[in-house]
Amino acid sequence: MRATTIHAPGDIRISEVPDPVISTPTDAIVKVTAGCICGSDLWPYRGENDIDAGSTIGHECVGVVEEVGGEVTSFRPGDFVVVPFCHSDNTCAHCRAGMHSACVAQGFTASGQGEYTLVNQAEGTMVKTDEQPDPAMIPSLLALSDVMATGWHAAVAAGVREGGTAVVVGDGAVGLCGVLAASVMGAEKVVVMSRHEPRQDIARQFGATHVVEERGEEGSARIRELTDGVGADAVLECVGTDAAIQTAFDIARPGSTVGFVGVPHGVDLPVRRMFQKNIGLAGGMAPVRAYLPELMKLVLDGRINPGLVFDSTLPLSEVAEGYRAMDERRSVKVLLQPS
Amino acid sequence: MRATTIHAPGDIRISEVPDPVISTPTDAIVKVTAGCICGSDLWPYRGENDIDAGSTIGHECVGVVEEVGGEVTSFRPGDFVVVPFCHSDNTCAHCRAGMHSACVAQGFTASGQGEYTLVNQAEGTMVKTDEQPDPAMIPSLLALSDVMATGWHAAVAAGVREGGTAVVVGDGAVGLCGVLAASVMGAEKVVVMSRHEPRQDIARQFGATHVVEERGEEGSARIRELTDGVGADAVLECVGTDAAIQTAFDIARPGSTVGFVGVPHGVDLPVRRMFQKNIGLAGGMAPVRAYLPELMKLVLDGRINPGLVFDSTLPLSEVAEGYRAMDERRSVKVLLQPS
Repeated sequence: MRATTIHAPGDIRISEVPDPVISTPTDAIVKVTAGCICGSDLWPYRGENDIDAGSTIGHECVGVVEEVGGEVTSFRPGDFVVVPFCHSDNTCAHCRAGMHSACVAQGFTASGQGEYTLVNQAEGTMVKTDEQPDPAMIPSLLALSDVMATGWHAAVAAGVREGGTAVVVGDGAVGLCGVLAASVMGAEKVVVMSRHEPRQDIARQFGATHVVEERGEEGSARIRELTDGVGADAVLECVGTDAAIQTAFDIARPGSTVGFVGVPHGVDLPVRRMFQKNIGLAGGMAPVRAYLPELMKLVLDGRINPGLVFDSTLPLSEVAEGYRAMDERRSVKVLLQPS
Repeated sequence: MRATTIHAPGDIRISEVPDPVISTPTDAIVKVTAGCICGSDLWPYRGENDIDAGSTIGHECVGVVEEVGGEVTSFRPGDFVVVPFCHSDNTCAHCRAGMHSACVAQGFTASGQGEYTLVNQAEGTMVKTDEQPDPAMIPSLLALSDVMATGWHAAVAAGVREGGTAVVVGDGAVGLCGVLAASVMGAEKVVVMSRHEPRQDIARQFGATHVVEERGEEGSARIRELTDGVGADAVLECVGTDAAIQTAFDIARPGSTVGFVGVPHGVDLPVRRMFQKNIGLAGGMAPVRAYLPELMKLVLDGRINPGLVFDSTLPLSEVAEGYRAMDERRSVKVLLQPS
């Protein structure tokens, strides 16, 4: 099959790789209807993470079940499924506690930017739609495989509550989905920190009530203004850099929690401030499967449209251009069509 | 008046210092019935914190109101009060959110190891008993001014729940109070990590169901055994050193929270593990005033007896010996009687 592979920083190719095969009875193979590029794929692309040269890349996709192992009983070929980026058995102690991303049988989608992908623990991982979805729904369903569930996790971890003020640090696709999540959860003020107009526009469509363009100390001062000097009730840190983390703790009110979902890179947590102001940190790799049924219902009912984060659609053959566009911030998030 | 002063690492004295005076109408002066030495007083004593030579030391006390400022209307001379170590107006946005330790009018008890102490924001800080308490109750009431409320805060921050497993890292007085808090909150297994028999005894009296003597990797392995490999539902970090923090995150189950109340010294938070396992951190300087009414009721009803942490009582004149005893771990916590 054809799939995206990474060979070195900046070197993304379409390659012919072996078709995935069912090797244990809990596996399934999904024919990818749509995949996409994640902000976290840019870490290796930019040389910030180690690269296993020639390996496939891409962990977000939706598609149609092609084949299932003998222990997969809830799915059959032809079912349309959302595939959480992180695979889980949905039965271990961590899954039962809603923390599927720490499943004892953890696996990951490895060729979401390809024609087919293997799903480990398919029974406990995939969630299907009752019928084949309207093609217009595909982007929003695709968003549930990672980015929207991750933004949702940030809001859950930050403890967003009805009537409060939620501030989202980061205007990437995850941050925008964090805006949408905070809005759905009923935050009265939803503030996005963004200086990029097209992203501000999506944020407003997702329910942002305020946009703060300033960064660093000036940005913090604006948040203090907006919160009568108190600080934000909930902060969603959706970047993963040290600057974003410092801003998050600077603007969070005492007793609140920073929900973090950006993979931390070079982060030095401000432990003294956290202690003195009782500002907690929660979050991490999102337990997508835990949220998926609820989020799928919101999408299918037309209540949320996270697919708006895809401002570019490319054929799989042009995946390298997709990476360039996201790396240069010409695109928020790129949807890839294998065929 | 006579009060304890610190002059250099290891140099604790009783000195004649000016009597406190009411300087704003929100002040009160309390005649100290009993004060005590806090584990955090050992940081400057050991030279780990800067010392303002000759300054008074001691932030925990109970006593009798001596004089109140014009705006203090709920208290009158003769009232017996518990004085939270951290003073707060109980009306600002942070206090209203239960985060009194971040009050905009924050103050601290400065001569709890003395004959009298000034209380800023007395109206919003002190809590009185209906009548003069039985002398036998004094130690437990004194414990509410900091140590018991701090252990309680660790349990609240860690999200201790009925039926779960709570592990307390640290067998100092705060850790022991954390054991008591977790037990009162209904944790089914309450594990204290301690290798010191007298402290283990107090922990058992406070409701500890298990004692783990091992440290480091061996200690973590024991906790994994006790939790069927899952990890602890709630971890109370009551020390503040890096070793204690690393152990705490090592034994916390995915999706749980480490509640930390030990003032962090040289701590490097394991942010990658926190992210990958979704282990949060919450806590900090305890909002004593928020918990005090509830805890005072528990003490006066005889349901908790946190005063057991005081295994030594000395006249104020022997405070230097009290510091030595705690520094050498000959004593868990020393109660001081000014007269």
